Amino acid sequence: MLPFANDYSRGAHPKVLQALVDTNLDAQPGYGVDQYSLQAAEKIKAEAQCPDADVFFIAGGTQTNAVVISNLLDGDEGVLAADSGHVNFHEAGSIEYTGHKVLTIPQRNGKLTAEAVQDYLDDWQADENHGQMVAPGVVYISHPTELGTLYSKRELADLAAVCQTNHLPLFMDGARLGYGLMSPASDLTLADVAKYCDVFYIGGTKVGALCGEAVVFTKRNTPKRFSTKIKRQGAMLAKGRLLGVQFDALFTNGLYFDISQHAIDLAMTLKQTLHDKGYTFLVDSPTNQQFVVVTNEQYDQLKQHIELSFWEKVDEQHTAIRFVTSWSTTETEVQQLISYL
Amino acid sequence: MLPFANDYSRGAHPKVLQALVDTNLDAQPGYGVDQYSLQAAEKIKAEAQCPDADVFFIAGGTQTNAVVISNLLDGDEGVLAADSGHVNFHEAGSIEYTGHKVLTIPQRNGKLTAEAVQDYLDDWQADENHGQMVAPGVVYISHPTELGTLYSKRELADLAAVCQTNHLPLFMDGARLGYGLMSPASDLTLADVAKYCDVFYIGGTKVGALCGEAVVFTKRNTPKRFSTKIKRQGAMLAKGRLLGVQFDALFTNGLYFDISQHAIDLAMTLKQTLHDKGYTFLVDSPTNQQFVVVTNEQYDQLKQHIELSFWEKVDEQHTAIRFVTSWSTTETEVQQLISYL
Amino acid sequence: MLPFANDYSRGAHPKVLQALVDTNLDAQPGYGVDQYSLQAAEKIKAEAQCPDADVFFIAGGTQTNAVVISNLLDGDEGVLAADSGHVNFHEAGSIEYTGHKVLTIPQRNGKLTAEAVQDYLDDWQADENHGQMVAPGVVYISHPTELGTLYSKRELADLAAVCQTNHLPLFMDGARLGYGLMSPASDLTLADVAKYCDVFYIGGTKVGALCGEAVVFTKRNTPKRFSTKIKRQGAMLAKGRLLGVQFDALFTNGLYFDISQHAIDLAMTLKQTLHDKGYTFLVDSPTNQQFVVVTNEQYDQLKQHIELSFWEKVDEQHTAIRFVTSWSTTETEVQQLISYL
Amino acid sequence: MLPFANDYSRGAHPKVLQALVDTNLDAQPGYGVDQYSLQAAEKIKAEAQCPDADVFFIAGGTQTNAVVISNLLDGDEGVLAADSGHVNFHEAGSIEYTGHKVLTIPQRNGKLTAEAVQDYLDDWQADENHGQMVAPGVVYISHPTELGTLYSKRELADLAAVCQTNHLPLFMDGARLGYGLMSPASDLTLADVAKYCDVFYIGGTKVGALCGEAVVFTKRNTPKRFSTKIKRQGAMLAKGRLLGVQFDALFTNGLYFDISQHAIDLAMTLKQTLHDKGYTFLVDSPTNQQFVVVTNEQYDQLKQHIELSFWEKVDEQHTAIRFVTSWSTTETEVQQLISYL
Repeated sequence: MLPFANDYSRGAHPKVLQALVDTNLDAQPGYGVDQYSLQAAEKIKAEAQCPDADVFFIAGGTQTNAVVISNLLDGDEGVLAADSGHVNFHEAGSIEYTGHKVLTIPQRNGKLTAEAVQDYLDDWQADENHGQMVAPGVVYISHPTELGTLYSKRELADLAAVCQTNHLPLFMDGARLGYGLMSPASDLTLADVAKYCDVFYIGGTKVGALCGEAVVFTKRNTPKRFSTKIKRQGAMLAKGRLLGVQFDALFTNGLYFDISQHAIDLAMTLKQTLHDKGYTFLVDSPTNQQFVVVTNEQYDQLKQHIELSFWEKVDEQHTAIRFVTSWSTTETEVQQLISYL
Repeated sequence: MLPFANDYSRGAHPKVLQALVDTNLDAQPGYGVDQYSLQAAEKIKAEAQCPDADVFFIAGGTQTNAVVISNLLDGDEGVLAADSGHVNFHEAGSIEYTGHKVLTIPQRNGKLTAEAVQDYLDDWQADENHGQMVAPGVVYISHPTELGTLYSKRELADLAAVCQTNHLPLFMDGARLGYGLMSPASDLTLADVAKYCDVFYIGGTKVGALCGEAVVFTKRNTPKRFSTKIKRQGAMLAKGRLLGVQFDALFTNGLYFDISQHAIDLAMTLKQTLHDKGYTFLVDSPTNQQFVVVTNEQYDQLKQHIELSFWEKVDEQHTAIRFVTSWSTTETEVQQLISYL
Repeated sequence: MLPFANDYSRGAHPKVLQALVDTNLDAQPGYGVDQYSLQAAEKIKAEAQCPDADVFFIAGGTQTNAVVISNLLDGDEGVLAADSGHVNFHEAGSIEYTGHKVLTIPQRNGKLTAEAVQDYLDDWQADENHGQMVAPGVVYISHPTELGTLYSKRELADLAAVCQTNHLPLFMDGARLGYGLMSPASDLTLADVAKYCDVFYIGGTKVGALCGEAVVFTKRNTPKRFSTKIKRQGAMLAKGRLLGVQFDALFTNGLYFDISQHAIDLAMTLKQTLHDKGYTFLVDSPTNQQFVVVTNEQYDQLKQHIELSFWEKVDEQHTAIRFVTSWSTTETEVQQLISYL
Repeated sequence: MLPFANDYSRGAHPKVLQALVDTNLDAQPGYGVDQYSLQAAEKIKAEAQCPDADVFFIAGGTQTNAVVISNLLDGDEGVLAADSGHVNFHEAGSIEYTGHKVLTIPQRNGKLTAEAVQDYLDDWQADENHGQMVAPGVVYISHPTELGTLYSKRELADLAAVCQTNHLPLFMDGARLGYGLMSPASDLTLADVAKYCDVFYIGGTKVGALCGEAVVFTKRNTPKRFSTKIKRQGAMLAKGRLLGVQFDALFTNGLYFDISQHAIDLAMTLKQTLHDKGYTFLVDSPTNQQFVVVTNEQYDQLKQHIELSFWEKVDEQHTAIRFVTSWSTTETEVQQLISYL
């Protein structure tokens, strides 16, 4: 079976794994203060051109979202997100588990617009019952979105401005951040992300690591004793080195960006080929997730050879499916996939 | 510096790491249903002689305790533990974070006795205000305890009997389980643990893995949709393979037990030597943690050469310190340590 | 100002208040086991023709919803509700505070249909990612709804059947239950409610009491130690008698139903008059809430004389407003209101 | 049966009840902004000589403690309390329900000392593992304590100083505050309480009201949108007037103090008489709770005629029991009680 169902089906990039091997017997303190974590944090701060940032490593995306969001929210606040946001659907209620509501705005191409956020805030403010309603307290976006789409620099700047005006932190879920930054459609750098977002995370699990996400607070806005809060929510690894070593490798000599570029190149090859063959797309994605409309018969046939994701029924005869490339996808695999299409 | 401060300062046992390398590019499904996790579960069930068990892998001990305990408790219940229990002090309130109280009983050598548990239950039952009190809902023990001590088979059987009579699940935190089972003082096997406990976990983080604990429900008592509950509490890794591969290696050819034995042998050498040199111990520990009383001057000197843990002030002149061996400790390191004493 | 903004602007019905005066110096045990509470429970069980029911009294509606729903849900479950449901908007996130998501279905006239619930369940079951999604665990309806509409016996029976098939408790928020049961459009009795719902509450705060809601578990399905759970969530009054005495009065000689009928009669007079004057309604409500469309000018004028609720903007020129009658509304007040229209 | 078991067995003081009758049909806005609540708040602020205070009314003590404490704590913080504190034992885990640990210090006569608090803080600060421990975030005291004892002005000032130095809010649970202030042993006024505490509550339920506690934030330190937070935790009554009217009555012409004085006078009569008869006391209480040591035979006999509280076994032959007077206790009842002793 060709593995195009997601971007987390294989282990780690060989260089990341090698770094774990190389550092294995070096004794280090636990709980995130090992030298590799410190070193990785410095490299990320340099890459993000954000010397004042604080960087923390957490094992997975769901817990990263829960830990960050819940510690930025005041008691009666909720997080504002597109209704397609990962925190709203596919994290098993982990935000609500922290006691907070996910307030949703209908997505447009998987995105929130500055205007929609401002409208939401205005409506809330104007509602005479808002004292009995959840107050918006954080704005959550994912980049790339769950639909593979991207925010432009303009869009992100506008969102950041609305957030700043309304004193709402802007949080970017970057589970696939590398695949966004290296897209030909992207006009954003990591430094831009750090400039516009109050906090974001750089996804490792889907971009070359065995596990791990790097949370970056960019505005001297780290919650007090954040490490203890991570611990309390069960998200602190004793061997923090496991995360530090991997991010240190990913941010050495641009590895994170190179392997993201690799996945994007293959995705673009796939997209162009599908386009040329006359396939239509559910959404025009410039990143490593491609949403293709096929007939139900094609779908039944394809899934015999290819690990892919069912996305949604388009109509009685058609189904949208998702192909995902990653750092580990090979050119051969893409060619084989194309041969089935 | 000689690393005797804890049992999680190094990476993984080389065979565990090799397993990660060997399986790295094999594509597998996520969220714990990869073949390695399934395979590791089977090996654990066989080793525990508990074919009906359900096995889950979770990245760290604090989150394992929180996920297991909170999902066994009814709304108004709390977990009964020795006041020295890890869940009571050093997990940053992670049980309370799930909404439940840790009900404490004064420890005896780090342990709970069946009698003390029954007395607690009787007192609670007899209290005319118990309708306004937290009801005991789970009994938590750690084995080895935080003081390195062990439950005998008799003690564990008695506890299990009290728990069964009172319909309370007995949960064993086995963060250092290997070091307990391989102690010369132990009369328990893994099968005994499975027989007496309703649920327990086999610690990986402190016994040869980069991360990971294996939770074993032994009595067809797994909470419904437990994987979703793990996910909701942020404790589900997308690449569940990371945990499965490691436990598969640890439970192949008795590796888990062999490397535990190694640590115990070194700890016993250290203990005997210290004893022979006339040192006194804070507690008589038959496992990989040794609690030694030294003068304050010795303490100041030792910590210049050795990573060790301050444990407590004994009196004005004396300090109790902790030395910990692990799978990664070498005979040379122990000899060097001894040379400083 | 004429008080038509809501149904909780005045104190208690004089007979309810008199009962508090009459019983004031009688010493009673606390925490809900006073004789008045026990007596009121018996009267409610008789009226509901549900001798096996368990009845509890809680001071307010928001906490009643939170306590009941959270104690019926398993860890990874959420409550299914119409998106217009009170628990979704106007309770400040009190359900999420208990750790659970409100799963919403678009309302139809403020209601859920059996079909929509079954569809939701089917979709959830069919979703290959449902292991990472919140599972539906309770169905919440309000009756009358937030839009003043009612479920017919047929609709309620169908919902109950879907819930039973899928092992989901059906919970009715009856904050205004009296006003529903006495509506000319209702074909439901209290006994029907008890028959079809697994749990429901009889609203006191909006129907003649100073405070208080009576929760009725109808199917021998009361959560274990429910009183302790109420206490834990802060919802247990020391002087439970305050609630017991009031419900005892309300369920003596049909007071609850008589005063509800009074409010409905006045609402129907108002509705008919408005209809005759040519006003249009946002929704056709057969209960004590009437949603009327007026011009913006009318709205500005009316609110100088009348306490009313802004409901929503209908278009540039028109506004929907809400008038609410209650047990305390007088015929004179309704005539005065009409004179302004 | 003579009602000496507690101070909440009867309804409301007649003047309080009369106020409810007198204001019953006056239409008022809901959710705590009715004129009676506003008026009561002003009277309390004047009495406390704290013009900048914010006052909120909440129906019961357990929920008041939970709402106040949880909204003053940062995520990883817990509340420091004497182990005899009400929040630690008899509130069914309502603090833990909010996600926070109750950190306990052994009580001395039911009290915390400034020194013990400072020692706790020093130990926590000094612990090299404190990053993995719950941080103290609020200091909770009850006054009178659960043992009927009182803080002197000196003791309270010292506690306040320690709290201020360490940036910890000092919160006083004043469920029985009136009985404390009117004790002959008290050198504190309500103004002193307001001066030294960052927040406290004035108990109504046990001092003349049907229900209700008045929370007073004294240092311009009210949590943002506190009313919404109250609502979210289910503690907001729609008819806030119920609480406002009662506190307005209690703080008119010194009623709160007069009825407290009445209870204290009777308690002192009882205490003196018991003392003269040679009874011993478990604790020397200057307030409305008296803890008397009797033989087991006396206990068995007394409880046939008197509602009293079992407190604890003193030895094989003796039992400590509690008698409680209140605003509603009559001189005749005290004389009858004495006749049994």
